Amino acid sequence: MEDAGQGIDWRSVCPISSALDVLGDKWSLLIIRDLLMHGPRTYTQLLGSGEHISTNILATRLNLLVSLKLIERMVPDAKARNNAFRVTESGAALRPILDAFAGWAQTYLDEFHADMLKIV
Amino acid sequence: MEDAGQGIDWRSVCPISSALDVLGDKWSLLIIRDLLMHGPRTYTQLLGSGEHISTNILATRLNLLVSLKLIERMVPDAKARNNAFRVTESGAALRPILDAFAGWAQTYLDEFHADMLKIV
Repeated sequence: MEDAGQGIDWRSVCPISSALDVLGDKWSLLIIRDLLMHGPRTYTQLLGSGEHISTNILATRLNLLVSLKLIERMVPDAKARNNAFRVTESGAALRPILDAFAGWAQTYLDEFHADMLKIV
Repeated sequence: MEDAGQGIDWRSVCPISSALDVLGDKWSLLIIRDLLMHGPRTYTQLLGSGEHISTNILATRLNLLVSLKLIERMVPDAKARNNAFRVTESGAALRPILDAFAGWAQTYLDEFHADMLKIV
């Protein structure tokens, strides 16, 4: 989608700000997490993830992530799950950031979040 | 603030989800960015940052970040800027994540964001 970036309100030229223009919400990186952890997942499977994402947020986020080429729809195949999504190269490149968030949370949020698991 | 974590709707025990419960928005990491780049900053200085954060979002985010000990208020001093905020250890520990976001955006968002600078 050539005009994918046109739909985003880029707040500045700062790359950190631009990354957050795309990923600065509570759900997008959890979708990426699920696809990295479990491999290709369908809309229904993503909807069943533990954080209980709503249908409209999931649909909106999937469309944005596809338009920016962080994820892609797999070609429906008789043997494969239909309409599954998978990460692209740019989506997979977020793995170190997710790992860093996990390590940071385990170190610094534990005192605020008694139920947090010590190991992912 | 002992009950800081009580005010957050922790969605699951996943540390990635927990990190996003705190930082999953478009502004919190930009406040951390400003404090890491420029050192201690006052409310007014943070308000003047290039992305034009609104007064109510800035105030809300600063209070949350203070309550979770990612930033702290400096003790007012005749020689220093009054009411400046600075990062704590846990806030400073987000620097590698910000660097990773910047590198990722420069590599993968450039085609969608024609104005993006190549160098931070």
